[in-house]
Order: sequence, then structure tokens, then C-alpha cells
Amino acid sequence: MLRVLQRASRLVAPGARTFSSDTGNSKLVLTEVDDKTGYATVTLNRPPVNSLSLELLKAISDALDDLQNNKSRGMILTSSSNTVFSAGLDIMEMYKPNQDRLREFWSTLQDVWFKLYGSPFPTAAAINGHAPAGGCLLSLCCEYRVMCPNYTIGLNETQLGIVAPTWFQASLRNTISRRESELALTLGKMYTTDEALKVGLVDEVAENKEKALEQATNFLNRFRKISPLARAMTKQALRSKDIVELEDNRSQDIDLFVYAVNQPSVQKGLEVYLESLKKKAQK
Amino acid sequence: MLRVLQRASRLVAPGARTFSSDTGNSKLVLTEVDDKTGYATVTLNRPPVNSLSLELLKAISDALDDLQNNKSRGMILTSSSNTVFSAGLDIMEMYKPNQDRLREFWSTLQDVWFKLYGSPFPTAAAINGHAPAGGCLLSLCCEYRVMCPNYTIGLNETQLGIVAPTWFQASLRNTISRRESELALTLGKMYTTDEALKVGLVDEVAENKEKALEQATNFLNRFRKISPLARAMTKQALRSKDIVELEDNRSQDIDLFVYAVNQPSVQKGLEVYLESLKKKAQK
Amino acid sequence: MLRVLQRASRLVAPGARTFSSDTGNSKLVLTEVDDKTGYATVTLNRPPVNSLSLELLKAISDALDDLQNNKSRGMILTSSSNTVFSAGLDIMEMYKPNQDRLREFWSTLQDVWFKLYGSPFPTAAAINGHAPAGGCLLSLCCEYRVMCPNYTIGLNETQLGIVAPTWFQASLRNTISRRESELALTLGKMYTTDEALKVGLVDEVAENKEKALEQATNFLNRFRKISPLARAMTKQALRSKDIVELEDNRSQDIDLFVYAVNQPSVQKGLEVYLESLKKKAQK
Repeated sequence: MLRVLQRASRLVAPGARTFSSDTGNSKLVLTEVDDKTGYATVTLNRPPVNSLSLELLKAISDALDDLQNNKSRGMILTSSSNTVFSAGLDIMEMYKPNQDRLREFWSTLQDVWFKLYGSPFPTAAAINGHAPAGGCLLSLCCEYRVMCPNYTIGLNETQLGIVAPTWFQASLRNTISRRESELALTLGKMYTTDEALKVGLVDEVAENKEKALEQATNFLNRFRKISPLARAMTKQALRSKDIVELEDNRSQDIDLFVYAVNQPSVQKGLEVYLESLKKKAQK
Repeated sequence: MLRVLQRASRLVAPGARTFSSDTGNSKLVLTEVDDKTGYATVTLNRPPVNSLSLELLKAISDALDDLQNNKSRGMILTSSSNTVFSAGLDIMEMYKPNQDRLREFWSTLQDVWFKLYGSPFPTAAAINGHAPAGGCLLSLCCEYRVMCPNYTIGLNETQLGIVAPTWFQASLRNTISRRESELALTLGKMYTTDEALKVGLVDEVAENKEKALEQATNFLNRFRKISPLARAMTKQALRSKDIVELEDNRSQDIDLFVYAVNQPSVQKGLEVYLESLKKKAQK
Repeated sequence: MLRVLQRASRLVAPGARTFSSDTGNSKLVLTEVDDKTGYATVTLNRPPVNSLSLELLKAISDALDDLQNNKSRGMILTSSSNTVFSAGLDIMEMYKPNQDRLREFWSTLQDVWFKLYGSPFPTAAAINGHAPAGGCLLSLCCEYRVMCPNYTIGLNETQLGIVAPTWFQASLRNTISRRESELALTLGKMYTTDEALKVGLVDEVAENKEKALEQATNFLNRFRKISPLARAMTKQALRSKDIVELEDNRSQDIDLFVYAVNQPSVQKGLEVYLESLKKKAQK
């Protein structure tokens, strides 16, 4: 039996059909807690591709707060889509942005990172679709990654002409070797599931979403006899340098993001990209 | 021919039969220097399981001082037990502790770490038995690890409900990948010899203690034509950040340990554990 | 067609025939830019073994400036020798040195490291010969290494009785695992091409120089569709801690080098070494 803790969804900003959609009154994040294990499955649910809008980020942030407040035994992050885990940041948040909302957008992404990367409870990602950029980041914040075949994953920011922030980079370095991180980040490389397994970007391959959830559960089960407090303190000690580094630079990091987004060349690039999406959609 | 440099043993605190023993006048640490190679074999000798009491730690610390003062060409650390390299910290040091002795106990463990992790002479561990927690730490301080089959090794602190200090964590990160370190430390994973070899937690497997000592000697031999000074400076430069980090936090680290040990929940946990050992011993 | 940008060579200090040579008016560094790809091939050209004299270092530094000023699309570093990529620092710069020149020598090596390790353009080394010490360092500064068979490579400073500076060490740690770095640096290990491939010290093996240049070109081609600015900022973010560490310690690092070189024991060691070379040459 499942107890469903669904966060009230919030207003969703209008988005181009092809990369985000009006989700109306549906829930942006579905949190289901298994009564038996106590594990929560947090499902990203912003069709079609879980692009990370301010509202989706807030919903994730709230879901993480709920889990922490309820002393969760563990969390699995997954997607309601059959093909995309998360397409990353919602471009509409950056195109001709309202400046206050832009700052809140980035600050909320930072919040999500702090809460997920530093969560006291164990976390696993069941990656049942493509996970570029911000989608990859969410999975990197987790402590374990199970991925379904024939998808791609990576911090491909340079391919989009942008720079992965230092805390995105730190999350990758926490997972794969420093050498592979440099190649991955400079090339903006998208790894296939098999390639990701080979370099350690994911820990296991699962043939489908059901199996991925099962394997993620198996990972969480490995902590059943471990003191949650000792576990949490150990995890946080290991990740503390990365966390403190962003804490010490939060506002500069926001300033940098806002400055970059507002560059005419970046706005022009976004415009060209959005036009190309419209044309595709019209065909 | 062997020249035996045995440290005078010191008074030994009374310990429960099952995890430590009254070693009377015997030597807690045996140091044998091979006249031909100049290498010292330092044997932990506190039956039955080399649990690290204040006295054993002092004996190790003194042995390391002797080696440094005698400009040792190299050291192999091993155990006189057939089944245990070292069972880690002696629980009796932490149960209903004398507060001054408790501080001295932890400070001496720090001393051992500084002297072994930062030793100018090359070091290798011949791990001829199980090496949990503090036992694992001692081997991690060495520059090379040869392990006999069918034992286990790991920083299993979370399994005991406690947190490996940051310098324990740093010693592990110096040896295996950052990714594997996070899994190892949060899970408190004990690796079998084969698993340890696979992740690089040990460098070689040896079929028995004799072979382990031989293989450790072979490692030390690789430095025979290397300038000892250049070697020592290189090692210390590589390990200096870890060392400086503890140097800068020595007293806080002691305070933290003393605070944690004195928590009623920790004392209760130790009591329950000791009761269970007594019952086992009575059967 | 190739456009050749050759730097004017500078006066060359007299050197013993066996490890450096009077290059007269020839070019110490040859820079060829492929008009089609825009990639520069920078060829070290100080026969017989490209030992790094002040003049060669200046020529490399100037070549890197040219590439940066011309917004290079990429660079391949290689050697005009058939057997040696670079033999490392020119010993004649350190034997009975002029003190001002000695400081300039080390400062110029720092310059080369800053410019190459932190270059905005992508870099690859086509290692068509042995690459000990400073030769290895130059290749480590690049982002990719292709090596021809049956040569050796490594930071073998301890074998020469000296200590690789912390920024040499950092460059190695950026490439191979921390564990392997410690072994490599304390042992002063020279890796065969195959061994280097196995630990990740080089990325690919190429059967000859022509193939090595081709494979290095293939690496650079992977960035063709990547924004050069985003790429450069990503690379520099990843390498910034190492770079800042030397920037903050530049003058102390020079002082340390000058102090070490002027030690009577070091001068004596160099003298003995030079005598042995002379005797070899006379046979």
C-alpha cells in the first residue's frame, strides 16, 4: 500500500509546447511513500520533458523539505515521462526574463542542490530517460544512479554555449574521476547508458523503469541496519567542502548567472534556438 | 640475522577477555630490524585482537619515533595474531572513561596518525587478518598494502553507529577513488580481500603472512636507489593538506571525540555491546 | 598548405654536446598552422633532446602567446627528434649558475606552465619520444596525450634526487588517480607507453609520429562545434585551484628552487653527473 503525499502544485509559467507545457492543476512532483520500507519515490511530473521551471524547482524543494521533516528513510528520484528524466533548465525562464523571477529561479535551483546533495537521508536516481544538463545534475546529487538502456546523460553545457557552474562541476567530480570530469565538461559530452556505466557516471543499468526502481530500492536497503545519524553525518562531512564553497558564494553565483543570461549574445542565441523549435513544431 | 628493538611495554589497562587481554609484561609492539635490508618489521602484539588501547597506541608511537630517529630505510606493519590485523579502537577506553585518559587516548591516536601517515621512511602493511575501523586506518596510513585471503577490511564506523573522523576519511580518499570512498564510508562497508584488491583498497594479495612480508619487502626495495630525502619530501608534499587540516583542528577534534563518547546514548550502546560480549563468553 | 609562424630564435647558452647543443640560428620552436583546421603544431626543436634551456622555454612561452593572441583553435605539441619528446630541464642551467639567469629560468618555466596548463585553446601532446621530468610536465599541461610505442614517460624527479614542485604534482594529479600519483611521484617511476596507457597517463597509443599527429587532431576536432569561450571558461574553472595556488606562491617557489640548486650537495651531484656524461662521450 502506498501513502501519497502530493504537494499542491503552483501556477506554471506559460511555456513553448515543445519543451514545456501548461500542466494546469496537475501535480509537478508526486511523492509516494512506501509504508513498508518508508522510502519515498519522488516523481518529476512536468510533461513533456520535466524542464526545470521555477515552479518545478519549488515543488522539488518542497518535496525535499517534507522528506527531511518526516525523517525519511530514503528517496528515489524518477520521472513520469517514458523518454526523458529531465531536460534540464527551462529555457523560457532565461529568455527575456523578469529580473526578479530570474534571481529567484537560480536561488531555488541552489536550494534544491543544497537539499538534495546534502540530504541526511539516502538518495538514488532511477534514470528512466534522457538526462542532459540540469537533469544530469539532479541525478548527480543523489548517492546512486540506476539508468535504463539507450538514453543519454551528461553535463553538456559547453555544447549549448554556456558554462556549467562550479557546483555542477563539483557534483560531477564527486562521482567520476577528475580526468574524466575534465573531458566530460569541456566536451559537454552526452554519455550513452553503457558509456555512463563504464566511467562510473551511473552505477547500474536496469532494463526498464520498474527494475530501476527495484534496484534503487536495493541500494537504499543496504542502509537498513546503519544508524541514520551516523550515516548522515558521514555523508555531509564528505560533501561539506563543495557545500560550503557554494554557501560562501551564493549571491555572487546568482549575480554571475543573471549577468550571463542578460548578455545580448545569449539572448540572441536563445531566440534562434526557440525559432528553430517553433519551425520543428510546425512541420 | 635480526636485531630486535623491543620497546619496554607499559602498564596495560584491564580489558574484557573477549576483545582485549592483560598482556602482563609482554611487549605490545615488537620491532625487528633486518640487518641486511635495514627494514623494520613492526608487529602489533596485544592478544587476542590488537585492540588499540592507550598503551598499544603509545607503544606504536614510540616505535615510530625510534624508526625516525634511526633514519629507518623502511617499515612493515603486521600483526602477531593469525586472524586479526587489528580490531580497531579498544572499546574499554570509551566505556565509562576517565576523562583525562580519554583525551590522552585520542591525542595519542592522532600522534600515531601524524607519525605514520607522514613518515619520512617508506611504509607497507602486511595485513594478515581482519582490519576493521582503526585497524583499517593503520593500514591506510602506510604507502602500500598486501593482504592475506579471506579476511575483511574497511572503515565500518557507520555500522557501529559512529562517524569516522575527517582524517580517517582523508586517509581512505588518499587510497581509493572519491566515489568508492563515499560508498565505503556511508555503508561502513567491510571489503573481502578480493573486493579490497578490486577497488584498490589493497595493492596485492599474498597467500600467507610469510609471503605478505616478502611482497611488502619487495615494495620497499623499489626505493633502494631513490634519495631518501627527495622521497620523503615528495610524500609529505602530497599528504601535507590532510596533515595540516588535522594539525589546525587537533584540539577541536579531541573535544568532538570526547563529547561524542560521553553522550548517554553512546554509553548505553557500549553497555549493551559489552553485555552481549559477556553473554557470548559465558556460553 | 601550411602557414609557418616561426619565432625568431634567441641566443643559446653553450651546452655540453651530449645533452644540449648549440642550435645556432635555427628555430628552437617551430609553429605551423594548418590553414584548413586552424590548428597549430608546435614542434620543440632543440637537438638532440629538447632539453629545456631558458631560451627554449622563452621560445615556447612566445609561441603560446602567439597562439593566444591569434585566438588559436587548438594546438598540438610535439618534438622534431625521433627518440626524445623532451629530456626535461637543461642541467647546464643549474650547474654553477648565474643567479639572475637562474631566477629567470625558473620564472619562465612557471610562465610556460601558466600559459599551457591554463590555455583557452584545446591542447594535445603527440609524444613521439621519451618524456622524463620536465618533458612529462609539458605533456601533462595538455588536455590529451597520444604516445608512440616503446618510449617512457614520467615525473622521475626522485630518481634524480630532487623533488617535483607542487605544481608538477598537481598537473599529474589532474591526469591520473591520486593513488597512482603517489606511487608515481615517490618512486619517480618512468612508465612505458603501455603502462602509461593503462593508468591513464596517456590517452591513446599511435604507431608513429604521423599517426600521433592525426589522432591528436581527431581529439581537437571533437571541439569543433563547441563554443570556444564556454570551453575555455570551463577548462579554466576546473584547473583554477592549481593555477591560483602557484600564482599565490610564485616568488616563494622561485626562492625554493634557487635555494635548492645552490646547495653544495646538489652542485656536487650535478658535477658528478656531468663528468659521467663527458666520459661516456669520450668513449
